[in-house]
Amino acid sequence: MSDLPQAIDIFEEGPREGFQIEKGPIATVDKIALIDALSLTGLKHIQAVSFVSPKLVAGWTDAEAVVAGFAVRPEVDFAALWFNENGLNRALAFRHKLGITGSISLSASEAFSRQNLNRDRAGQIAAMRQLTGVHLAARVPVTRIAVMAAFGCNFAGDISPAQVIATIEDGLQIAAQAGVTIEVLSLADTMGWGTPARIARLVGEVRDRWPDVELALHLHDTRGLGIANAFEAMRHGVARFDSTVGGLGGCPFAGQPGAPGNIATEELVLLCEEMGIRTGVELEALIEAGRLAERIVGRQLPSAALRSGTLATFRRKLT
Amino acid sequence: MSDLPQAIDIFEEGPREGFQIEKGPIATVDKIALIDALSLTGLKHIQAVSFVSPKLVAGWTDAEAVVAGFAVRPEVDFAALWFNENGLNRALAFRHKLGITGSISLSASEAFSRQNLNRDRAGQIAAMRQLTGVHLAARVPVTRIAVMAAFGCNFAGDISPAQVIATIEDGLQIAAQAGVTIEVLSLADTMGWGTPARIARLVGEVRDRWPDVELALHLHDTRGLGIANAFEAMRHGVARFDSTVGGLGGCPFAGQPGAPGNIATEELVLLCEEMGIRTGVELEALIEAGRLAERIVGRQLPSAALRSGTLATFRRKLT
Repeated sequence: MSDLPQAIDIFEEGPREGFQIEKGPIATVDKIALIDALSLTGLKHIQAVSFVSPKLVAGWTDAEAVVAGFAVRPEVDFAALWFNENGLNRALAFRHKLGITGSISLSASEAFSRQNLNRDRAGQIAAMRQLTGVHLAARVPVTRIAVMAAFGCNFAGDISPAQVIATIEDGLQIAAQAGVTIEVLSLADTMGWGTPARIARLVGEVRDRWPDVELALHLHDTRGLGIANAFEAMRHGVARFDSTVGGLGGCPFAGQPGAPGNIATEELVLLCEEMGIRTGVELEALIEAGRLAERIVGRQLPSAALRSGTLATFRRKLT
Repeated sequence: MSDLPQAIDIFEEGPREGFQIEKGPIATVDKIALIDALSLTGLKHIQAVSFVSPKLVAGWTDAEAVVAGFAVRPEVDFAALWFNENGLNRALAFRHKLGITGSISLSASEAFSRQNLNRDRAGQIAAMRQLTGVHLAARVPVTRIAVMAAFGCNFAGDISPAQVIATIEDGLQIAAQAGVTIEVLSLADTMGWGTPARIARLVGEVRDRWPDVELALHLHDTRGLGIANAFEAMRHGVARFDSTVGGLGGCPFAGQPGAPGNIATEELVLLCEEMGIRTGVELEALIEAGRLAERIVGRQLPSAALRSGTLATFRRKLT
């Protein structure tokens, strides 16, 4: 296992992903409490809120209040999500607290894009070209292409590496026309179609094609293969992962309510910690944050590590 | 991934593992219904009951009634678990329905053995020597050594490959003295200390030492790494796994109530099915059996695949 990375970067998306899918209204103070707890665990990147239309995602009407409320920490990058100029402008009001960078976000599955955003391939290219222009006009750097449904889609079935590569090419063309340089390619297993074999194949093909661009994975644990998929990606040199505390989240547009959400940050950190891969995260503090998340959403979250605790705890008891 | 097995053998232990740890009394008819449902999924090996002292495990006072009740299927091997002569004799009364083979079962962690059975290393060797004699006197073949706590122990911490190898040597000496040949070495991650690195190392060392003996793994998903561990074992040529439908079970002696149980059979089958590794199991029938198991125990089981269903279902809808 000599080709495993020595360290990985974790992009915690629990607050943003988690609170968009929970049924009940989550109190603003609770959202702030979870973000504050996460920001004390050693996590360096936290996606805190979504500036999305309340018509689309009811859980984020209080995004402004949440950003106003959480405590800034110099060692943590706080981020937000938005899909259009209105969302960007809401985010820009918090430039002092949020790192504002733009993404070119495209679905490798046209069916998912139609279902989710009512856009075909040409429509999503046009929308991203327009949004990139908006970003640049606001002096927001655009450095990342994110490909949704990169492994398969509940509305289109299997997605081939060729479809993903074509989607990345669409994104790179948008970037080239706008004169921006893409530094990160993020591949999302939005609906849990990934397997270690598909991870290996897609990561290999994308890396062969664009060896100088950093690869990131956004994995969901929809069918229990999430951590195996993350580990397979690490074997192929991927060192940047999105995950959510407790395994919060899930895709509200995937058509499978009740399915587990993203890979759980604790499980990812535990895997790395036990294998000597640095994450910078204190697992016990993270588990405490996960338990807070469970109290906030009022249900047991899927993370197994939340039930069982760390191995370090047992080792310490024995010494 | 060329060294992955073409097929794996799955030993389903859901009924036996699952019903020993559930709090409520499970009705005999429900146990029978689950075994019958599992026996129609293509599973070839089902550990159905435990002939253990009701004082130790209250959930199995009805083992006889359960074995009497389930339907025999010629294509399925039904098995049982016992720990002593009394248990064996109870099993032997069902020789027409149960495959009766003996194991030499030893813990690599002396602390776990003390905690669990009040036996030190010499004590467990003596007990297994005695039980092997009992098996042979009853003409029950003894072909398997099972090593509990082979990766770590909540009462002893990390367990080294050297400790596991010494434990296997204890078992082989018992076998040699009794004149029996061991065909299977089963390594159990009883308390969820396994990682892919530990799996690779231990499987490698055991295989190097005993290249002609089949290796089996009994993995728990205590901390969410179970499927990643199973996959790593497959990479190293392991093709025999215990698992439980829905992820039922957990170790009643591990001191971590509420922790997830064994790896879920559905997740293992899904991983294999999507990667072209044959299991002989019909995943959709298995998921139905898992949902029956959830209704029986009255709680949501940890298996993610139970929530999300197969990918084949989605593919079929699309054609």
